[in-house]
Amino acid sequence: MSPSQPAIEDAADLPRHLLGLEGVSAASINRILEEAQGFRALVDQADKKTDALKGRTVINLFFEASTRTRTSFELAGKRLSADVINISASASSLQKGETWLDTVRTLEAMTPDALVIRHPDSGAPHLAARALDSHCAVINGGDGTHEHPTQALLDVLTIQHHKGPIAGLKVAIVGDAAHSRVARSQIHALHTLGAAEIRLVGPKTLMPTEAATALGVQVFHDADAGLENVDVIIMLRMQMERIRGAAVPSQREYFRLYGLDPARVERAADDVLVMHPGPMNRGVEIASEVADGPYSVILPQVTNGLAIRMAVLNLLARERGSGSPA
Amino acid sequence: MSPSQPAIEDAADLPRHLLGLEGVSAASINRILEEAQGFRALVDQADKKTDALKGRTVINLFFEASTRTRTSFELAGKRLSADVINISASASSLQKGETWLDTVRTLEAMTPDALVIRHPDSGAPHLAARALDSHCAVINGGDGTHEHPTQALLDVLTIQHHKGPIAGLKVAIVGDAAHSRVARSQIHALHTLGAAEIRLVGPKTLMPTEAATALGVQVFHDADAGLENVDVIIMLRMQMERIRGAAVPSQREYFRLYGLDPARVERAADDVLVMHPGPMNRGVEIASEVADGPYSVILPQVTNGLAIRMAVLNLLARERGSGSPA
Amino acid sequence: MSPSQPAIEDAADLPRHLLGLEGVSAASINRILEEAQGFRALVDQADKKTDALKGRTVINLFFEASTRTRTSFELAGKRLSADVINISASASSLQKGETWLDTVRTLEAMTPDALVIRHPDSGAPHLAARALDSHCAVINGGDGTHEHPTQALLDVLTIQHHKGPIAGLKVAIVGDAAHSRVARSQIHALHTLGAAEIRLVGPKTLMPTEAATALGVQVFHDADAGLENVDVIIMLRMQMERIRGAAVPSQREYFRLYGLDPARVERAADDVLVMHPGPMNRGVEIASEVADGPYSVILPQVTNGLAIRMAVLNLLARERGSGSPA
Repeated sequence: MSPSQPAIEDAADLPRHLLGLEGVSAASINRILEEAQGFRALVDQADKKTDALKGRTVINLFFEASTRTRTSFELAGKRLSADVINISASASSLQKGETWLDTVRTLEAMTPDALVIRHPDSGAPHLAARALDSHCAVINGGDGTHEHPTQALLDVLTIQHHKGPIAGLKVAIVGDAAHSRVARSQIHALHTLGAAEIRLVGPKTLMPTEAATALGVQVFHDADAGLENVDVIIMLRMQMERIRGAAVPSQREYFRLYGLDPARVERAADDVLVMHPGPMNRGVEIASEVADGPYSVILPQVTNGLAIRMAVLNLLARERGSGSPA
Repeated sequence: MSPSQPAIEDAADLPRHLLGLEGVSAASINRILEEAQGFRALVDQADKKTDALKGRTVINLFFEASTRTRTSFELAGKRLSADVINISASASSLQKGETWLDTVRTLEAMTPDALVIRHPDSGAPHLAARALDSHCAVINGGDGTHEHPTQALLDVLTIQHHKGPIAGLKVAIVGDAAHSRVARSQIHALHTLGAAEIRLVGPKTLMPTEAATALGVQVFHDADAGLENVDVIIMLRMQMERIRGAAVPSQREYFRLYGLDPARVERAADDVLVMHPGPMNRGVEIASEVADGPYSVILPQVTNGLAIRMAVLNLLARERGSGSPA
Repeated sequence: MSPSQPAIEDAADLPRHLLGLEGVSAASINRILEEAQGFRALVDQADKKTDALKGRTVINLFFEASTRTRTSFELAGKRLSADVINISASASSLQKGETWLDTVRTLEAMTPDALVIRHPDSGAPHLAARALDSHCAVINGGDGTHEHPTQALLDVLTIQHHKGPIAGLKVAIVGDAAHSRVARSQIHALHTLGAAEIRLVGPKTLMPTEAATALGVQVFHDADAGLENVDVIIMLRMQMERIRGAAVPSQREYFRLYGLDPARVERAADDVLVMHPGPMNRGVEIASEVADGPYSVILPQVTNGLAIRMAVLNLLARERGSGSPA
């Protein structure tokens, strides 16, 4: 699988599929963000539903356990009045020897309008998108260590809501960026929208090498220096396997060196935003006082995630469905 | 966790949340029962659906395996036209190190109108209710050995349907009352609605101590004496672990001493009702002739459960959603 | 359990339940096929939904892992606007000691209009159908080695679409017919609709004995002879357990003797149809060139499956629901 192919699969204003944010234009990202703003308002009403996707079908195909992302896509689809089908399976049990492309083509034959895929293999959604003959949109719900585009879009929506345009902002991403599909997608989105600085903060063992420099990202191994004067701090979830492995000395040591406590927040700009994609490990990568403190927008991120997924489904499933199939 | 806090969380006519039946007024219980009567009629029609909760969201968060209760809440929500999201997970896999309150607050950020919680820890729904800032109603779908309020409400609805007012009735609850959240909720409901006698029948090892006397419940270790002249017999499901443990001698012995067979039914009043929350162990706590016999209302209990859950969701999710969030 | 009872449970034009195709009249099959033709057109539209089953409830009770069939029934129900409840469980975890009939009667008490059952025991749906008192239709989604009627109906729909009437066609079914509920249902359907020849092709260890001769089916142990001049080739999925067991020598040997490669396809009639119920084992029972080749209708089978399940649900759930319960 080659996840480095361009994420836009046709030349139109909007991508046909949302496979990643690498190579997606600022215009496309902004169109999704505007659509999401509209749905953000809906969320505060008693009747949170629209008929936008009535009669359309969304299939959530999740090969990794995920409560948060699956629930968010499911609810987004239902509030758009789509019929939503969940398929949660380990690769082995679902496929029974069937190839990945046979699985995908079989689902396509059930005539969905969007197929949301989470898969442990980087590039699995790209392979799926290339295999489809129909108008069905493929949306990457997180693939291996590659990309998680809707997470980055909801982060950008949250930042914009509090800080205005991304252009000119300084953003620090703290933690295991080397293995994080969330960080990858965030870097592409922030870079495309003109962030002034993108800093990666963490131990050498958890920092990516080439990609970082390629997009002008700065790497900091010292957390205090890395957070100096930033407008936004994005904490990454620490995978406990890394700590049990050799990459990180110990949980306590990690927190001392890279954990976000109130003192570190003070180093950032006034009114810094503190973000986390969840689920949080309190006391490992973030202190409870900070997670629950005045700068935290961790819960609004979740609500914005719903709006982003409604926007993505509505734009990609509706646009495709309204024309004739390709 | 302290499940003994009052189950009504505000002073209004109806509880804001339904965490248990302890401390819930007769007026509140009766309002739910009346609402359920209306939905009971709907169940017999070809089109069993109303638009009452269109645009509202119900999340079923089930940390224990449950087909019956989960299905009942899911169908209740759907027949009210709500969007229903099921999350079934063992505590470990869902949370991935996340705290219970972070899980709950994350789901709240998806802006549901009701959150139905089943959890192996007594008090988990109470903790959740206290953590929520929004109008979202928390409904206890069974927590540890604490309460299972909708089960008791459906039992009361079933009794009323056949016997009229609860006041003045003699009810025997037979089995493992010490560990039964079903029995606890039943005792509160029956006591609040003025049952003449509430009897617990079972071996000493399975009888609660303080709580029983506190609410004026009588304990019988002799089944024949305990069933004498009662209007309603509620059998509890015997957990097979108790039999394999030391609390109960053997399956055969348990049936001989406490199982409900036709001879024991004869000791009760004419037209006694025989009830069981399911799933039944035929031949352990109840004989097949009785389960399928003329006094059994075990299947109507299931149908009434649907009506009760429609009533609870409709009252708590609609009332909350129609006003401004707290 | 006695799966050999007649699959039609009442004398009306349409069966009350769809338990199998054995004994179902050509008129009944044709009525389902005509209904499915109508839904086949709907599938190509942007809004693929009808209000036909609004307010009705479909419960999918799946005791065996199944992505394809469960998804197909779920989506069929949703596109008919029914409320669909999925229950996926191993027999042990669902029942908790409960009998099969108590499980079924409990679900019936939730007042569904159709109950789709997949079960590892042959005859389980028949037992369920006999236990129900209400108008609820039971639909067999595959039971043990007995029948899988909707699979055979979608196969017949696919053949008709390309070849016109079944009468006069020569059809070869290749593989483990002895253990295949798919093959059993196909044989009944093809026989009832007047196929000219039904051939079973495979090693002696995987061929049924009595049933085959009873319906005039011819058995071929030589694949080249068996495929000679047939209009339709239906490949069966090879269960890997058979290969690991003694029934089949090895995967490579099986493919050499019975696998469908381009040379074998040449032996069949011009414009032969190549079919497979999925999931496919490429390189075991079918070569990739054939699966993806010009004669393959394997993906249209999936789409037709949706139309067949919409037809079956609509005919059985609607007809029943509109009258008074039996």
